[in-house]
Amino acid sequence: MNQQRVNKVLEEMQTRGIDHLIISDPSSIDYLIGYSNHPGERMFVLLLSIEGNHVIFLNNLFYLDQELEMNIIWYDDTQDGPALVAQYLKDANVVGVDKNWEARFLMRVMELANDECCFELGSICVDYVRMIKEEEEKALMRESSRFNDLAIDQVIQLCAKGNLTEKEVSQEVEGIFQKLGCSGNSFAPIVAYGANGADGHHEGDNSLLKPGDSIVIDMGGQYHGYCSDMTRTVFYKEVSDEQRKVYNLVRQANEAAEAIIKPGVRLCDIDKVARDIITEAGYGKNFNHRLGHFIGRDVHEYGDVSAVFDMPVEAGMIFSIEPGIYIQGDFGVRIEDLVLVTEDGCEVLNSYSKDLLIIG
Amino acid sequence: MNQQRVNKVLEEMQTRGIDHLIISDPSSIDYLIGYSNHPGERMFVLLLSIEGNHVIFLNNLFYLDQELEMNIIWYDDTQDGPALVAQYLKDANVVGVDKNWEARFLMRVMELANDECCFELGSICVDYVRMIKEEEEKALMRESSRFNDLAIDQVIQLCAKGNLTEKEVSQEVEGIFQKLGCSGNSFAPIVAYGANGADGHHEGDNSLLKPGDSIVIDMGGQYHGYCSDMTRTVFYKEVSDEQRKVYNLVRQANEAAEAIIKPGVRLCDIDKVARDIITEAGYGKNFNHRLGHFIGRDVHEYGDVSAVFDMPVEAGMIFSIEPGIYIQGDFGVRIEDLVLVTEDGCEVLNSYSKDLLIIG
Repeated sequence: MNQQRVNKVLEEMQTRGIDHLIISDPSSIDYLIGYSNHPGERMFVLLLSIEGNHVIFLNNLFYLDQELEMNIIWYDDTQDGPALVAQYLKDANVVGVDKNWEARFLMRVMELANDECCFELGSICVDYVRMIKEEEEKALMRESSRFNDLAIDQVIQLCAKGNLTEKEVSQEVEGIFQKLGCSGNSFAPIVAYGANGADGHHEGDNSLLKPGDSIVIDMGGQYHGYCSDMTRTVFYKEVSDEQRKVYNLVRQANEAAEAIIKPGVRLCDIDKVARDIITEAGYGKNFNHRLGHFIGRDVHEYGDVSAVFDMPVEAGMIFSIEPGIYIQGDFGVRIEDLVLVTEDGCEVLNSYSKDLLIIG
Repeated sequence: MNQQRVNKVLEEMQTRGIDHLIISDPSSIDYLIGYSNHPGERMFVLLLSIEGNHVIFLNNLFYLDQELEMNIIWYDDTQDGPALVAQYLKDANVVGVDKNWEARFLMRVMELANDECCFELGSICVDYVRMIKEEEEKALMRESSRFNDLAIDQVIQLCAKGNLTEKEVSQEVEGIFQKLGCSGNSFAPIVAYGANGADGHHEGDNSLLKPGDSIVIDMGGQYHGYCSDMTRTVFYKEVSDEQRKVYNLVRQANEAAEAIIKPGVRLCDIDKVARDIITEAGYGKNFNHRLGHFIGRDVHEYGDVSAVFDMPVEAGMIFSIEPGIYIQGDFGVRIEDLVLVTEDGCEVLNSYSKDLLIIG
C-alpha cells in the first residue's frame, strides 16, 4: 500500500464528506496499493473507509502473489459479491462510488444498503490525487514522450515510402515502441490518409497515399506503465494553399494554448484560447472535440481541457493540447503535444518538430 | 433496425414491467440496430420505450454512415449527456438499466429523473433474447468453432516442437485464425505450461516446456462477429499417473455434463453433475470456477453454468462446458467445448479429440 497516496485520498474524502469510497478502476487500485487485476465481468473493489478499515474484495480466480496490508475478502463465482461489499457499509453515511463502476454491482449495493446511506460519485477523490504527478511519475512521463518523439519519426519515414496502406503502417507502430524499450502501444494508433483524417476516430484501412494527402498520425506508447500520446500531421508530396493555411492555424492554436498554461489558469480558458483562434478564422465548426485530456497510467484519465471544465491548473498536472480542423471528404489536421504544468508555466513533453513537413 | 429482435426485447420489457430500457452495451446495440461504436469514455445509449419512441444518443465524434430508423440525439463534449437521456424519461415509471452502464452516467440520470421513477437492472430483456440464437447465428457459431478445431491443431503442433515459449506460441494464434479466414482472436489465448496451467488466468511468459508438463491451451477466434472458445490439455513427452487420473476425471466431468443437456434441465444442475464427479474424487477444491459461460457475439455473454444460476436451458442456447482441476505448483487440466442446445439434447460444436495426447 502506498500510504502517502492513500492518505491524500482520505483527505479528499474528508473534505468532500465521503466516509466510504468504492474504487473499482484497476489503474486506481494499482496506483494506491501496487496490486491490480483484469477482472473481466467479475467484481474487483477496494473499499477505503475514513476510519482506516480498508478492505479489498477478490474473486478466488484472481492471482495474488504479494502481501496486501489490509483486510482481504475472497469470494467465488457462486457468491453475491455486492452483498459482501454492502456488509461493510453498515455504518456508512456517504458512500463515494467509482465513476466506472458497473450498474450490476452498484444497483445491488444500493438495494442492500441501509436507508440512511447516501451514494454519490466519489472517484474524484482518487482522480484528483492522480492528476498531480509525483516526481518519479513526471520522470517516467518525460521518458515515455521522448520515446514517442523517436517512434513517430520512424512512422513518418514509413509513410514517406508511399507504398504502405494505413493499416500496414499502423501495424508497425507497436513493434517500433517495443524495440525502443516500451511495452507497447498506449492505444490503437491512428494513421489516416487524406479525407480519412477528417474522421476523428478513423480505423486504419487499405487506403494508399495520393499526392496532396494530409497524413494524421496519432500514437502513443507505454513506458513503465506511463502513457505517451502525440499527433503530428504531415503532407504527401504536395500541399495546397488551404491545407497550408489550416495547418498554420492549428499550429497557432496549439502554441497559443501552450503559451498561457501556468498554475491558476482554468482549463476552460486554455480551451478557449485555441478555439477562438480557429473560430475567428471561420473553422469553428470543424474543430468538434475538446482541446485535450489528462493522461498518465491511462491514456485518458479524469480531466478535460474543454469549455465545461473550469478547474484551475496546478503544477504537476499533465494533459494533451490537441486542436484539430477537419474538412469532411477532403483532409484533416491535428497537432497534439503533452504538457506538464510547472511552477510558472509548462514543459512541453514532445519535441518533435511542428514545422510543416512534406514527405515522399 | 432489426424489428424482430427489437420486438422480442419489447415483449420482455412488457413481461417484466419495464417501460423504458437504457442499453449501453455496444454488442447489444449492434445486435438490435446493426450499428455500433467504441465509445471509450463517451456516452453511447440506445433508449427503447414500450411506446415505440426509440432514441439513440450519439457523440458528434462518432462516425455514422447509415440511416437509423429512429430519433437521433447528437451531443458534443461540452454537453451533459445523461441530462439529455433524462429528458426522455419524463413519463417513465420503471427504467431498466444496462448491467454494464457506468456509475458516472447512471447516477446523474437517477439524480435528474422524476421522483416517481424507479430504476432497476434491465439488460436481461436484451440478454435473454441474445441467449437464444437464430438459425443464421447458429450457423456462424458452428463455423467459428470448426475453425477453432483447425486452429488448435496447429497450436498443438507448435507446442510439440518443444522449443517455443508460452508467449511465442500464443503470439502465433491470431495469425493462425486470420489465415483460416477469421478476423482474429476472440480473447487473448492462454498457453500455460506445467504449474502455470494451475493459474486459471495465467499470462503467457517466457517459460519453456519440460518433459512431464501439462499444456493448457484455451483459445478462440472470431468469425463474422461470432466467437469460438475451446480448451484442450495435452502433455509434453510423458504423463504421470496422477496427471492421467486427473485428466480422465476432467474428461468424465466434461462428458457427463454434456450428456444431460437438453431443454428443461437447469444450468445449476449441469454444473452439479460435473462438480460432483470431481468432488467425489477428492478434487472439489481444485475446481474453483463455474462450469461454463454463455457466448456469441461476445466471448462472455450473460448467463452462467454455475450453482447459482437456476434458469432451465432452452433450444438455441450456446454455452461452454469447461471443468478443470488445478494442482497449485504442479499442473492443471481443463477441457472445454461449446455446446448448442437442440430440441432433444445438445450439439457439441467442437470436435477436436479429447483423448489424452502426449506430444513432443
